[in-house]
Amino acid sequence: MRFGYFDGQNREYVITRPDTPLPWINYLGESEYCALISQTAGGYSFFIDPREQRILRYRYDNVPFDQGGRYFFIRDNVNGKYFSPTWAPVYEKLDRYECRHGLGYTTIESEKGGIETELTYFVPLGEDLEIVKAEVRNVGKGTRDLTLFSYVEFCLWDAVGDATNFQRTWSIGRAHCEGSTIVHDTLFGNWKDIFAYFHCSEKIDGFDCQRKAFLGNDGYTPLQRPEAVVKGECSGSVAIGWAPVGVHCLRFKLKPGQKKTLVFILGVAPQMQKAKLKMKKFSGPALVDRELKKVKEYWDGNLSRFQVETPDKDVDLALNIWNQYQCRQTFAWSRYASYYESGIGRGMGFRDSFQDTLGFAHMIPEKVRRRILDLAAMQFPDGSTFHQYSPITGKGDLIGYSDDPLWMVYAVANYIKETGDFGILEEKVPFAAIGDRPPVQVGHHDYGKVSSKQKAVSNKASLYEHMKIGIKRVWKDRGKHGLPLSKFSDWNDCLNMLGDKYRAESVLVGFMLVAACRDLIELLESNGPKLRDKTPDIKEYRKISEEMKKALEKSAWDGDWFKRAYDNDGRPVGSKTSAEGKIFLEPQPWSVISGAVGVREGMTAMDSVYKRLFTEYGIKLLDPAFRHYHPELGEISTYPPGLKENASVFCHPNPWAIIAECMLKRGDRAFEYYKAILPMAQNDRAEIRKAEPYVYCQMVAGPDHPDFGEGKNSWLTGSAAWNFYAASQYILGVRPDYKGLIIDPCLPKSWRNFTVTRTFRGARYIIKVKRHGAGNNQVKFLVVDGRKIDGNIAPVFSDRKEHTIEALI
Amino acid sequence: MRFGYFDGQNREYVITRPDTPLPWINYLGESEYCALISQTAGGYSFFIDPREQRILRYRYDNVPFDQGGRYFFIRDNVNGKYFSPTWAPVYEKLDRYECRHGLGYTTIESEKGGIETELTYFVPLGEDLEIVKAEVRNVGKGTRDLTLFSYVEFCLWDAVGDATNFQRTWSIGRAHCEGSTIVHDTLFGNWKDIFAYFHCSEKIDGFDCQRKAFLGNDGYTPLQRPEAVVKGECSGSVAIGWAPVGVHCLRFKLKPGQKKTLVFILGVAPQMQKAKLKMKKFSGPALVDRELKKVKEYWDGNLSRFQVETPDKDVDLALNIWNQYQCRQTFAWSRYASYYESGIGRGMGFRDSFQDTLGFAHMIPEKVRRRILDLAAMQFPDGSTFHQYSPITGKGDLIGYSDDPLWMVYAVANYIKETGDFGILEEKVPFAAIGDRPPVQVGHHDYGKVSSKQKAVSNKASLYEHMKIGIKRVWKDRGKHGLPLSKFSDWNDCLNMLGDKYRAESVLVGFMLVAACRDLIELLESNGPKLRDKTPDIKEYRKISEEMKKALEKSAWDGDWFKRAYDNDGRPVGSKTSAEGKIFLEPQPWSVISGAVGVREGMTAMDSVYKRLFTEYGIKLLDPAFRHYHPELGEISTYPPGLKENASVFCHPNPWAIIAECMLKRGDRAFEYYKAILPMAQNDRAEIRKAEPYVYCQMVAGPDHPDFGEGKNSWLTGSAAWNFYAASQYILGVRPDYKGLIIDPCLPKSWRNFTVTRTFRGARYIIKVKRHGAGNNQVKFLVVDGRKIDGNIAPVFSDRKEHTIEALI
Repeated sequence: MRFGYFDGQNREYVITRPDTPLPWINYLGESEYCALISQTAGGYSFFIDPREQRILRYRYDNVPFDQGGRYFFIRDNVNGKYFSPTWAPVYEKLDRYECRHGLGYTTIESEKGGIETELTYFVPLGEDLEIVKAEVRNVGKGTRDLTLFSYVEFCLWDAVGDATNFQRTWSIGRAHCEGSTIVHDTLFGNWKDIFAYFHCSEKIDGFDCQRKAFLGNDGYTPLQRPEAVVKGECSGSVAIGWAPVGVHCLRFKLKPGQKKTLVFILGVAPQMQKAKLKMKKFSGPALVDRELKKVKEYWDGNLSRFQVETPDKDVDLALNIWNQYQCRQTFAWSRYASYYESGIGRGMGFRDSFQDTLGFAHMIPEKVRRRILDLAAMQFPDGSTFHQYSPITGKGDLIGYSDDPLWMVYAVANYIKETGDFGILEEKVPFAAIGDRPPVQVGHHDYGKVSSKQKAVSNKASLYEHMKIGIKRVWKDRGKHGLPLSKFSDWNDCLNMLGDKYRAESVLVGFMLVAACRDLIELLESNGPKLRDKTPDIKEYRKISEEMKKALEKSAWDGDWFKRAYDNDGRPVGSKTSAEGKIFLEPQPWSVISGAVGVREGMTAMDSVYKRLFTEYGIKLLDPAFRHYHPELGEISTYPPGLKENASVFCHPNPWAIIAECMLKRGDRAFEYYKAILPMAQNDRAEIRKAEPYVYCQMVAGPDHPDFGEGKNSWLTGSAAWNFYAASQYILGVRPDYKGLIIDPCLPKSWRNFTVTRTFRGARYIIKVKRHGAGNNQVKFLVVDGRKIDGNIAPVFSDRKEHTIEALI
Repeated sequence: MRFGYFDGQNREYVITRPDTPLPWINYLGESEYCALISQTAGGYSFFIDPREQRILRYRYDNVPFDQGGRYFFIRDNVNGKYFSPTWAPVYEKLDRYECRHGLGYTTIESEKGGIETELTYFVPLGEDLEIVKAEVRNVGKGTRDLTLFSYVEFCLWDAVGDATNFQRTWSIGRAHCEGSTIVHDTLFGNWKDIFAYFHCSEKIDGFDCQRKAFLGNDGYTPLQRPEAVVKGECSGSVAIGWAPVGVHCLRFKLKPGQKKTLVFILGVAPQMQKAKLKMKKFSGPALVDRELKKVKEYWDGNLSRFQVETPDKDVDLALNIWNQYQCRQTFAWSRYASYYESGIGRGMGFRDSFQDTLGFAHMIPEKVRRRILDLAAMQFPDGSTFHQYSPITGKGDLIGYSDDPLWMVYAVANYIKETGDFGILEEKVPFAAIGDRPPVQVGHHDYGKVSSKQKAVSNKASLYEHMKIGIKRVWKDRGKHGLPLSKFSDWNDCLNMLGDKYRAESVLVGFMLVAACRDLIELLESNGPKLRDKTPDIKEYRKISEEMKKALEKSAWDGDWFKRAYDNDGRPVGSKTSAEGKIFLEPQPWSVISGAVGVREGMTAMDSVYKRLFTEYGIKLLDPAFRHYHPELGEISTYPPGLKENASVFCHPNPWAIIAECMLKRGDRAFEYYKAILPMAQNDRAEIRKAEPYVYCQMVAGPDHPDFGEGKNSWLTGSAAWNFYAASQYILGVRPDYKGLIIDPCLPKSWRNFTVTRTFRGARYIIKVKRHGAGNNQVKFLVVDGRKIDGNIAPVFSDRKEHTIEALI
């Protein structure tokens, strides 16, 4: 069963019926203003920070699902009937419906009783506002007398207060109307310098600013049938307290074939004067169309930096469009705001965002540079780090994750390989101060708070130093098997083996530490500029690496796979001796990725993954699922079998297995893993997958759950970056390195060739790979612009020109 | 306009149409299990703590308003039509409707198309469950074929996680059905020892446990028309993740006149075995009726301890029933869980709960005793205190309120006057430790947390010492005018004059300190047992009091009233020299209450209150309202004029003015104030008041707001206790004291007499007061059981007998 299809030409996903099994959404905006929008125009908007500067209210887990949004009601003034052109919130069946989620825009077209509507939603580049262009056309026979109502509901900026402190918030919401502009301001101190407005390009015939005035009946009426819509007129209400909304009301007649085009702007501004400039800037459909064109060009430009042609159209859809797009959104919003992340809890993740750069460094490296430096500033002088921070306050939150510092190393290495920007290592980065751990909340305000940023300025070190102290921190904190302490947890934050002494050890972090040392040694040996004074460190990294390998050799192997950890009482976790959770995925691929173990052990471990963990919807995280509560393992066994960390197909580590298999040169298996969780491959199984077929999910319900195959928590997930990284750098094998672009593919048998067109350090590489056998042999030579060179590294050109690289495997 | 009436006989408020302007609610339960229920059966339930152990989901600020709840759908299987007997959530118009909110129970009766339904909701005494007794009767002519669906939606215990962390919570909710019992359990660690169940007394014909299975259409369908109800059958769904609900489905026929009675139980239990005992205990209507009778008797018993007969029926309704009932609920739930307090933010307030005891000490003094000791343990050894705490974790939160320690003194004095329990002063009470200030949140758990309770055990002092160090703390922290520092704020927590140095001073706290010293001196001079060793402290309190009086004399008077404060820069606040907010209410009555100023100044100040602040809906908090943002005053000017602390009729301090006027012997004015905010007096103005006419609100919109007269934030407010205290102890003047019951009324001219029947220290007092003139002279003698005694103090009998006290004024 399907609810839509991919339009590769237009880079759109086209949804053909509005009742998708879950809201299928899109992100509008690319920098500060962000709007989430579903196929029925549900969702919300925020400016920079979804917690502190929320513009529209959205009710998660509501009945019905997926409200509010940016809604319209169209009423026939002859018979009083009305409908919503986006189906919600009236849910009156439409004669025709189509939603096109494009890159940075969404268009919803529908027809009902002879009225055709096309709504185009987007955020113009770099703007602090969103546009809805609304076209209403009479495609019937007689003249129509219509009233159109717009509807948005404002959030009171502070999304937490808005949703919890009603004895206060029901007194502070304000909205009024000036001309065709509804103004949502507030007297509250922090926000006196920002307000929201909802503007209509034409003179309006009425408005409402108070929700219950629009709904009528004191608010008991559902949004399905607002009293104002039933009556056909607004009451001109103003909100001083209760719930501010923005409703424009426009009455107009349409002759057969006649069309009415309106532009609505929802935005924020510091003063009305600035808002007025924006209203002028986007005052007509032609001006708006021009801006939309710019958005499309922007995305074309972004995507053009990496394009492929492969024998598999799903792979092309993923790598050329949707996976890159998702990488961009996860880079922008980390795990902060989606339909599953409420925008108030998690902020920007330290390790999340470092990993997100792996899928994005090729697209806009300047943004990655800045993010790396911002994130590094969340590290304490002792090498440990905050786990997340709020982008608007700069305040860090949570500590104690053992793996956090290591992700910085991989991300920085990947960034330098992509860009050659060794200079970033010399950037002075402040430390977070210990005193900045989340301040005591005193009263309604943070009385006496010190933000991490302010205090930290006095205490800086180079980015390289930050990386180094991170390694040392992990190295220093070892347990009795010589493995890194797990602390609160490692990557698997539901495997929090706290006990009372925090003595649990992580095999995964052991492998990760070896990998990080290897990356640092490679970096220092790369002969990059200004590295010479650092090369003495190589010895230290080598020592750490060797000793950790010894510890792993002694204590990590379980016979057919690697153990996952030792718990607080020294018992092995993820072992044949375990009653449940005998094998965990994570350490197996990292044993290979890190190069810490021999090929034979690595292959055996990866064969165990295939045999014990692989399912038709991907590799599950562990087996057998926990069916009993194991307090010594923490949260993991509190989930139902088959969901979340308890043996779902957790998508994030799946590409680790792909990379490991590529390193083992087993192309078929790598590709089998890749396709199993590739969203595009599930488009015709929407009744099972339920989530959007165009983006990765955090997880897919595992075989132990009745909904096996259902995608959960779509959009903001490390799966996006890692899958892109695995597919582009390991399956296709086009891998940036300090000295050039390594060409090292590992393909499934059935593939005969592929092409990658890629921007790399200021030049354009057209990489054509052909195979002449069935294997995945190492590329021995390249034909570069017609000339054969030895080895598999395409050189750095930096000449802004196009170069053709041919390779044979 | 009215939506109902008071049934004084049955102690019920009867709502006669379901579309009240706001949800009009009731609280069910008197100890640990609490259920909030509105006139359409909306609301939620929790066990002990609404944050940590929430049972039902409720969506605040939803559209439509007031969902979920404990709902029923009744479907006619002949024509497929259906309705809800509580109007919501179908909102199909009912032929007849009546909701009776009683004390501890709510009954909703309705009729639709020949089907009469009576639903009785209550929590049996001391039980961990709620009952719905449902009676469905065929009052039409033909036999009816009906299907009844029940509906509750479960919250996942942790109300914060449930509402914010969807990437997690949408994987953890579980529900399944065993026989006629829907079981909502969870694997999550903390809660493995508790589960919820929803049981039906009869064999059911179907069930649903997954919300979207019941609603159909993947959740886009509103609760107004669930697919299962439309189809007439459930699908037997089980929830493992997404949204667990409890739906029973029963099909039955009713002949004309025939009735079906069902009992539904929603409760929590540690094991199924215990739940089964409860199902048995409440298995039939007769057993349930008996329990309901016990609830009514319980309330009759509670109220019988204080009953009045006055010339004003609204006063009788308030003092005999509803005001006492509200005092009981505010005592139980502080400012934690209402329709305006979300149950996740505020916990039990330190000063809130101490003040709440003033209206409740007469009813169940043992509970007050325990609460006083619990609260006192939130004090630090330096005399400052936590501002609130969570009842289930015992963890304190927020610090820095300058007035907090003083409320302990008044509350303890009032409790001892009521009970004669001087022994409480010797109780050893632990201190909160400084290290217990809210712990750093690390990971998903409180890693390394120490609850205040645990740590505090080692460090205790007597309750009297706690009171004393509180006084000293306030005394020590003075500013340059010699007045107490305001710190984060005083009672008015929106007047947070933080500046950068916290130098602001509070005139209010100055008066409060004098009053607290006076109370302690009176206590020590009362010759109570074991006080002798403490009497040397009198000198110290006298010194503090005298010096504070001098400081007030020098710096508090503004010419016609008392200033409110000095801000951080030493500028007067609430002064003729102020641009806005020239006069504040709070210091004026406290100048009189404290006895710190002469009668002439007190009268002048109180005349200014009458002249400048009194409105037909009560006394507003200040004048003129702030129309500009004053950052130096903090949050207060961020509210719209006329709402909240910005010049609304803030109800809490209104009774302070009543007390002051009684102390000044101006009975008419005191009574005018009392009646202005008396909810019962607004029953016929529901279109203005909007809130419940049977309980006090936190505030009433002031004349500067377009909704002047609208009651806001009903139920949990200090207004309840203070109004009861003012009316009973000052207007009626029946005032417990160390040596007996003072009879000191201050009546309006029109009153000729009244009777108070009151339990006091184990005896029953029937106090009959008559007046022989128009004034409010001091009572010079009493006739006690027929014998005249001098003075106005009825003696302590402690003989469990009834005594008649007659007084003349």
